Amino acid sequence: MSTSSSNSTTDVRMRGFHNRSSVATALKWLDSAIDAQLATRQQQSDATELLPLEQCCGRVLAEELVSGLPVPAFERAMMDGYAVHSADLAAISADHSVALLVAGESLPGRPFAGSVSRGSAVRIMTGAPFPAGADAVLPVELTHPGDTGRVLAIAKVTAGRHVGRVAEDIRPGERLLPAGRRLRPQDVAVASSIGCPQLLVFRRPRVRILLTGSELLPAGSVPQGFRITDSNGPLLQSLVQRDAGVPAALEYLGDDPGKLLQAFSEPADVLLVSGGSSVGQEDFAPQVLAQVGELAIHGLALRPAAPTGLGRCGSKLVFLIPGNPVSCLCAADLFAGRALRRMLGGSGAEPYARQMLELGATVASATGRRDYVRVRREGDRVFPLHTSGAAMLGTVVRADGYFWISEEQEQCSAGARVEYFSYDS
Amino acid sequence: MSTSSSNSTTDVRMRGFHNRSSVATALKWLDSAIDAQLATRQQQSDATELLPLEQCCGRVLAEELVSGLPVPAFERAMMDGYAVHSADLAAISADHSVALLVAGESLPGRPFAGSVSRGSAVRIMTGAPFPAGADAVLPVELTHPGDTGRVLAIAKVTAGRHVGRVAEDIRPGERLLPAGRRLRPQDVAVASSIGCPQLLVFRRPRVRILLTGSELLPAGSVPQGFRITDSNGPLLQSLVQRDAGVPAALEYLGDDPGKLLQAFSEPADVLLVSGGSSVGQEDFAPQVLAQVGELAIHGLALRPAAPTGLGRCGSKLVFLIPGNPVSCLCAADLFAGRALRRMLGGSGAEPYARQMLELGATVASATGRRDYVRVRREGDRVFPLHTSGAAMLGTVVRADGYFWISEEQEQCSAGARVEYFSYDS
Repeated sequence: MSTSSSNSTTDVRMRGFHNRSSVATALKWLDSAIDAQLATRQQQSDATELLPLEQCCGRVLAEELVSGLPVPAFERAMMDGYAVHSADLAAISADHSVALLVAGESLPGRPFAGSVSRGSAVRIMTGAPFPAGADAVLPVELTHPGDTGRVLAIAKVTAGRHVGRVAEDIRPGERLLPAGRRLRPQDVAVASSIGCPQLLVFRRPRVRILLTGSELLPAGSVPQGFRITDSNGPLLQSLVQRDAGVPAALEYLGDDPGKLLQAFSEPADVLLVSGGSSVGQEDFAPQVLAQVGELAIHGLALRPAAPTGLGRCGSKLVFLIPGNPVSCLCAADLFAGRALRRMLGGSGAEPYARQMLELGATVASATGRRDYVRVRREGDRVFPLHTSGAAMLGTVVRADGYFWISEEQEQCSAGARVEYFSYDS
Repeated sequence: MSTSSSNSTTDVRMRGFHNRSSVATALKWLDSAIDAQLATRQQQSDATELLPLEQCCGRVLAEELVSGLPVPAFERAMMDGYAVHSADLAAISADHSVALLVAGESLPGRPFAGSVSRGSAVRIMTGAPFPAGADAVLPVELTHPGDTGRVLAIAKVTAGRHVGRVAEDIRPGERLLPAGRRLRPQDVAVASSIGCPQLLVFRRPRVRILLTGSELLPAGSVPQGFRITDSNGPLLQSLVQRDAGVPAALEYLGDDPGKLLQAFSEPADVLLVSGGSSVGQEDFAPQVLAQVGELAIHGLALRPAAPTGLGRCGSKLVFLIPGNPVSCLCAADLFAGRALRRMLGGSGAEPYARQMLELGATVASATGRRDYVRVRREGDRVFPLHTSGAAMLGTVVRADGYFWISEEQEQCSAGARVEYFSYDS
């Protein structure tokens, strides 16, 4: 935890993890921690917000939406044509059409005022109120123009045909959307149609991003001497935004455990701590978390991103994310992103399009460990990158996507079918 | 175009489309119109904007990103361990370890100041500058603590081992990202790592949403009498946002061709006109577009959404979208959304997860027409909804997704495998 620790202590701590958790174990703990956070969220006074419809798409509904109205509220035409008495058309045959007096018209929002008498018809447009007296719509395709003021019906219709009934779309009292629904465009539309101008949704998770390491210059700075420019901060910010969390401004803490301790106490839903997550001399994040909260998982059977930690502090989920940029992407996508996606009503799975493709070259792995293999895609085959170090940010920029090698496999052979995840999805 | 047109003229115009374009024909025209718009975009003075990194993810890069720097800029350790002279370890065997004097340490951002002498080692952390004199990193796992001030090396290393070379991640002059790249989180990170605090990206397409129909009350209003509340406006706004366009405030134009004519002249990249898109009495949008611009496609062999129109007006792409809510979703997703997604660097395909599932009940169609079939999913099977009218917004709220029946199929039989698109993706 400090540079004054003795060499021998440091050496012990540099030796790596005694036990590594499987990815499955880590995900199991994480899912239960997310469940617990979601369950307690209802009690928080600021858990929800009331938003106008135009801001609701993609958000998670906090209370059931029940319709107070029927839709439609009146009978309507489902086709362009004529509102008729079906009985007037009973005599129609191939040789015999029937002339009807056109008594008026009904347009959407502008109904025919009277009642349709026998022998008459009212011209009607799709969606227009269906007039009293009539019992069916004769589609315009089944008519010919008649003498002035008349229309010739050339086919019969049955009573009720092409007439939309009251409430056939939405019944009053119908439960339209359950609490917890991730709102689609059509859900927002249906709320509008029943006269609901805003919806109660859960607020988006607030995420603080803490960057450790005194060698880091802030994002976008020109690298100077032996100091490097932070890239994990912009990476994590972008991932959080993509998964619909609200990232706070990046916080650079240097190698000061006191600053990290302070940061753990400030409000957030999710804390991402980048760097200092392993068991080396300057890796103080795990100890600080264990001191003020719970370090539930530390060290994974995963390459890269073995030095990942998962835990919580009060109601905050905490992710200790390795400083190497490839490990950072891998751990953040798999674990922190999962939490955000689940909080926004999704499944938690990595948000990439998948397909089965052929592996073009053998990739070594080791049983008992899961591997994140970045690949380039060429047609229906994928190829591992030549350079693959976790320190190489360029590899995930040049890669088109990745696949996983499971714990059961010692290698993945050329010609095998692998589940390819595309970074471009 | 006006309510004063004679009955006979109206009747002719109510008879439907003489010719319907296939979806393939419509998409072909649309793709070439999008290509043309993208090609001319570069000449617009406001085509691009310079954004800070934290706003760049998901945007389309407008100019190639070339690195001006090497990353890393200095040799660095790739493991925790000791910087050593590999020649000092040549005598190591199973029975024989070698003690080295620990001359100091190198931490990230805090290099060892001197040069490493023969017989000495410098403790070094992953990412720390590799000191002069030494030629390899001996991982800590291959050492034991020695007497005070010393470390015992228990294995050999080859020269260069675990030393990261200058520029091995990114070479100076390397073309990192091409113009037109849709920026991923890691792309934003790599820009940061080379000292680039902002990126030039294309601005998001600006979309105006025009709602026609005097029967409509504004979104979220309580329906009154024979007037219905607009749901297409919120639907289109949500779709535009989801596809990363910038929707303007909804504009309600009633049934006034003059207002629509005026709206066509105002600035936008994309115009969506909802309602009045068919060939009926009040469907004036096609004529207005043909008058001031180009109505390239009108009437599709597609159910629902047959009364869709595609065209342009100056540099604006114009979509005439049917007023029925299911048709509105179908046409907007397939055509207008395609334009937005392609402008944002995507493929244009509908942005839903797909998988092959079994159809649980036969669905009728007709050859020569493409059908959009809303379904509920139960396990590995999908079932068409019982009610399926295009006027029923509730159907797309209750549905889990949809599949297409192609023009070649007269029906799709129970037991067939269909490509299911999930609304939840």
